[in-house]
Amino acid sequence: MIVRVLGSAAGGGFPQWNCGCANCVGQRNGKLGPPRTQASCAFSIDGARWFIIGCSPDIRAQIEATPALWPRAHRDTPIAGILLPNGDIDNTLGLLNLRESQPLHVYATAAVWRGFVEGNSLYRTLERQPDQVTWHELEDRRAQTIDGFELMAISVPGKLPPHLRDAEPDAAHNVAFVVRAGARAFAWLPTVAAPSTTLAAIAHEVDVLFFDGTFFTESELDGLSARTARQMSHWPLGGEDGSLEFLSELPCRRVLVHINNTNPILDPTSDAHARVLAAGVEIAHDGFELSL
Amino acid sequence: MIVRVLGSAAGGGFPQWNCGCANCVGQRNGKLGPPRTQASCAFSIDGARWFIIGCSPDIRAQIEATPALWPRAHRDTPIAGILLPNGDIDNTLGLLNLRESQPLHVYATAAVWRGFVEGNSLYRTLERQPDQVTWHELEDRRAQTIDGFELMAISVPGKLPPHLRDAEPDAAHNVAFVVRAGARAFAWLPTVAAPSTTLAAIAHEVDVLFFDGTFFTESELDGLSARTARQMSHWPLGGEDGSLEFLSELPCRRVLVHINNTNPILDPTSDAHARVLAAGVEIAHDGFELSL
Repeated sequence: MIVRVLGSAAGGGFPQWNCGCANCVGQRNGKLGPPRTQASCAFSIDGARWFIIGCSPDIRAQIEATPALWPRAHRDTPIAGILLPNGDIDNTLGLLNLRESQPLHVYATAAVWRGFVEGNSLYRTLERQPDQVTWHELEDRRAQTIDGFELMAISVPGKLPPHLRDAEPDAAHNVAFVVRAGARAFAWLPTVAAPSTTLAAIAHEVDVLFFDGTFFTESELDGLSARTARQMSHWPLGGEDGSLEFLSELPCRRVLVHINNTNPILDPTSDAHARVLAAGVEIAHDGFELSL
Repeated sequence: MIVRVLGSAAGGGFPQWNCGCANCVGQRNGKLGPPRTQASCAFSIDGARWFIIGCSPDIRAQIEATPALWPRAHRDTPIAGILLPNGDIDNTLGLLNLRESQPLHVYATAAVWRGFVEGNSLYRTLERQPDQVTWHELEDRRAQTIDGFELMAISVPGKLPPHLRDAEPDAAHNVAFVVRAGARAFAWLPTVAAPSTTLAAIAHEVDVLFFDGTFFTESELDGLSARTARQMSHWPLGGEDGSLEFLSELPCRRVLVHINNTNPILDPTSDAHARVLAAGVEIAHDGFELSL
């Protein structure tokens, strides 16, 4: 199984269009490495058919940056399925970019899928022909076999997307994906609001854990947002009860994704960056690829 | 006045994610020049405050490719306004990419704006604070003075966006923009379905005309779409009654934008490309800039 990170940044990407923080300015000045698109990965069992997790607003650029995802015929795509971990715009808006009448197969819980399609007039763009989008419903903790791998969606602490802020909370609005092929497995968790026993159980079942690296500190958005990291449903890495301590004790390979533009780990000279590496945790970049 | 083309491609961009036509393959192989993002331009009177026309799904990449549009403070944008020529996803979806609580000023006719916001649950992402989006209504052929320039929206033959296909047709669903500063003016017309006397009147009033270069031939999508160029509301360039003949006779500078991935003019060795240049018409690329 091959897993390739298409996008490693949190919502808004890195740099963020309206942000002039030290990280964003540093990136624009060429001092902090390449830019990062919004979190998404692609995986394949055979190297020919690919599934992507998260359909970010940057999907068009992500596909063009990834030759394995290019069409092999006049109208074609090697993308056999799209898995949605939650209903945030970061994870769903890209579907509207894929509007060229190509049949799409979407895998999502009812909470995530209904939150995207219901009351969404723009979605009619994807209903121009009967087979344009096929939704495959995922249920919490029920494994499905798809095309040579086993997929399980597991609800983890998260939040409702901003456009559904008045809706009824439902645990299935935010899920981890565990993908298993034979004896090897990885998990994708771009949004984790808080520790839970479920997280530890997932982490001990997989070879590679892609984990929420949004914020380093609880107060990282002070002056920019009225909310803290945890209030935004992202368990920060640092601090006494931060996720880095949890991650440091796991036996699997651990890779941070969904990194916010404000996160000091983006600066390789920072103390935060050094602490992450010292904990044995990796920091994904766009195009980061591994086999398992 | 400076005008910069941020994106020169039609909907889907160039290459298009699921297209393996000779043009798209040629681009991916490095033979047809740089890729193209979806049609949009930015203009400025003073070089400090910018307005953009069309808010494409590629807006994030377009801003990062354009240093003049980078923030100059911790949270900031030089983008003072966003003008929407029609309600197609190509021209509107980017608004949802600009969701980081930055106040946005949008200029659009009631038909275009209502077609985007009404019944669109995702739009609530832009309603998280009272001043997040301010809509400035444009009326057909009524000039407004904004920040040192005069703006006029003029309805031209077009079509309803796909997600509004059952709505009541309204001429104000597709407009040309004429932007005038002092004695100089340009017009932006990415979608023109057919010739009209209005087009000729606009063309004789401006110094530069950015014009619909979507298709070269009426049958360009044979085998890919059941509809012809005109049925898709794009007057093709070639043929006896094509737009190239109209354009060739105009006294102003003429620049093609909104070029579809299938258009042979994208290949500089093609006869179509040579015919466009022979008619005195220019072909925009992303980053194409002019002063007037």
